[in-house]
Amino acid sequence: MEIYMDNAATTRVYSEVIDTVGKVMRSDYGNPSSLHMKGVDAEHYIRCAKETFAKILKVDEKEIIFTSGGTESNNTALIGAAMANRRSGQHIITTCIEHASVYEPMMYLEKQGFEITWLPVNDHGIVNLDALKEAVRPDTILVSVMCVNNEIGTVQPIEDVAAIVKSCNPSALIHVDAIQGFGKLVLHPKKLGIDLLSISGHKFHGPKGTGVLWVRDRVKVQPLILGGGQQKAMRSGTENVPGIAGMAKAAEMEYTDLENKLQHLYELRTYFIDEVEKLEGTVVNGGKKRGYLRMSEDSEACAAPHVVSVSFADVRAEVLLHALEEAGVYVSSGSACSSNHPAISGTLKAIGVQKCYLDATLRFSFSFDTTKEDIDECVAQLSRLLPMLRRYTPGGRKKGGKRV
Amino acid sequence: MEIYMDNAATTRVYSEVIDTVGKVMRSDYGNPSSLHMKGVDAEHYIRCAKETFAKILKVDEKEIIFTSGGTESNNTALIGAAMANRRSGQHIITTCIEHASVYEPMMYLEKQGFEITWLPVNDHGIVNLDALKEAVRPDTILVSVMCVNNEIGTVQPIEDVAAIVKSCNPSALIHVDAIQGFGKLVLHPKKLGIDLLSISGHKFHGPKGTGVLWVRDRVKVQPLILGGGQQKAMRSGTENVPGIAGMAKAAEMEYTDLENKLQHLYELRTYFIDEVEKLEGTVVNGGKKRGYLRMSEDSEACAAPHVVSVSFADVRAEVLLHALEEAGVYVSSGSACSSNHPAISGTLKAIGVQKCYLDATLRFSFSFDTTKEDIDECVAQLSRLLPMLRRYTPGGRKKGGKRV
Repeated sequence: MEIYMDNAATTRVYSEVIDTVGKVMRSDYGNPSSLHMKGVDAEHYIRCAKETFAKILKVDEKEIIFTSGGTESNNTALIGAAMANRRSGQHIITTCIEHASVYEPMMYLEKQGFEITWLPVNDHGIVNLDALKEAVRPDTILVSVMCVNNEIGTVQPIEDVAAIVKSCNPSALIHVDAIQGFGKLVLHPKKLGIDLLSISGHKFHGPKGTGVLWVRDRVKVQPLILGGGQQKAMRSGTENVPGIAGMAKAAEMEYTDLENKLQHLYELRTYFIDEVEKLEGTVVNGGKKRGYLRMSEDSEACAAPHVVSVSFADVRAEVLLHALEEAGVYVSSGSACSSNHPAISGTLKAIGVQKCYLDATLRFSFSFDTTKEDIDECVAQLSRLLPMLRRYTPGGRKKGGKRV
Repeated sequence: MEIYMDNAATTRVYSEVIDTVGKVMRSDYGNPSSLHMKGVDAEHYIRCAKETFAKILKVDEKEIIFTSGGTESNNTALIGAAMANRRSGQHIITTCIEHASVYEPMMYLEKQGFEITWLPVNDHGIVNLDALKEAVRPDTILVSVMCVNNEIGTVQPIEDVAAIVKSCNPSALIHVDAIQGFGKLVLHPKKLGIDLLSISGHKFHGPKGTGVLWVRDRVKVQPLILGGGQQKAMRSGTENVPGIAGMAKAAEMEYTDLENKLQHLYELRTYFIDEVEKLEGTVVNGGKKRGYLRMSEDSEACAAPHVVSVSFADVRAEVLLHALEEAGVYVSSGSACSSNHPAISGTLKAIGVQKCYLDATLRFSFSFDTTKEDIDECVAQLSRLLPMLRRYTPGGRKKGGKRV
């Protein structure tokens, strides 16, 4: 039995996507820049993929740039927009719970002389809109807020963020890292009022090594990778045609019948949370109800369907992770402490998770293929393993009665 | 009948490579950064791929960085090395026949305050070593010379380039764009005395969207793409595991029995040139004999096995290209004029190709799969098409007798 609950890390590639990638590699291996038919055939896949994303995002095809992944998309958006608009100002705003692929470019820009404002979030991970309103200045050129947090699944009120920024400074650009959001949310960037959007193929059952950067028409972005001038010189290098075709296929599949799939996944999510909360010594982090891209009265209503962060008293995350793995359940450690990059994220710290839980948190992330049986099995394993592991945790028994 | 002679643009993906990519996508879709077995399994492919390249290049595994392709490798090498070593000097040397993915980063660096010296080449495209010797200064931090020219196939005397640079300034770094050379030359960068080497997967029957950057141990390079710290923070972003595994498979296959395959391909090349030169009004550009990475007395001995540039009197390259295409022969226009980027390359101009030939040049590029029958058919089509097309070229008939 294998239960993959690490879909926020990466997803199983849809078999239709694998077939597409294989077919393009086998039959249409031309270079899109070649003048002969093999080039034209290859270019056709790129055009079709642009159409697919343009349709899903309700944007223009010529605004779609294909990249090697979400990290490159974020880097290009942030460094590219900052450098291209430097003359208008050097102030940038972001949040304190962004992914490393936003955080690190921000640190780089800071070294280049830009000033970065880091917005705080509340205990569900929602960005503080009052702080945003105060932060926007005439020299603010860029605001970057992620769409869905990768550790706790918070959906940010992007529509409100955009409205606030544009009302304070209409020329400030807004970038949204939608790497965890694309495929799980209806995303219409023009309606949201944003300017740049990053997408990663392998987060929605597409191939690794593929991504999209949407850049609103006329927004100035300096390219990160220079050369042969492919993609209107916005991203040079021979296009990864099979990967692009595969990613488009995955996007098409992910957005087919989305609302029904979402309802089902939210039901499973709620069920999982209810079951997990019945276990002794567990705390679910972040909001619990379905989140949308605009502010709700109910601070609980900010959750993505596929990410649940749970802290477990008196168990080390890594130990529980490997115990679950032995039982065939694959999850992720949800804490900055146990990732490769101890100091970076701090999402859990930012939302006020108690220190004792920072290294005792797991992330369970689902896909549309996740079933109730998967969740039952996962909860059954947790309920079997937790008491067992706590017996071996120093101080576990003693503190047993005091758990939340 | 289909004769693909555009292998310098891109290559047919080996079916074993397609199988590898498919297998990894299907069975081992984990994220190499995940702590559980799915992550460990995925990471295993990356480690094996590093071993493969380390063995072929005779370098250390930890010196291998995987990128999204040759263009990214060149950008990272050049911009990364220049920025990281800026304090030691701001002078960079390259040649006037580099690929756009070197040329454009150089132009970028010039805007950042670096001084670029462009070395001339002789009429076979070999870099002028005397000019190199004169150009190296105490503040030279980087020298970039391509291994095999993409338009005319010249093999550069990289070993001599390295010896000259290091004797003049031991701390200057040497980068080699080996995108057209890898797979067709024995490349041992440490023996050559260089510091950085770029490779592109799709040029040797691997997947598009994959590349390698070799960085000699302790050489300082600033990463281009920042984020989660993958690949020792030299190239962040979830690794394209299936692509990397596929590229390694292709490299392994390309370097199996290399010397025999090379001998065969050089024989075919010579045969092709002999046959083409029998046709009226044709000029073969560049050297004709097998080239090595060190200087030879014979300036003709500087040719890669797989690229032949031919100029045709009184025929427009694009017209001939499409006529050949109709006959099932796929080639590339070999002139800067007919590419997407008119002003960039200038290789043909740099080697002194007459103005009337600049827009009348095709590139024929072979692979180890190219057969004598392919070449016979290609030559037969040329001999059929040339007189026909010349009849319709303005002035074609009149100038008929004066051709070279």
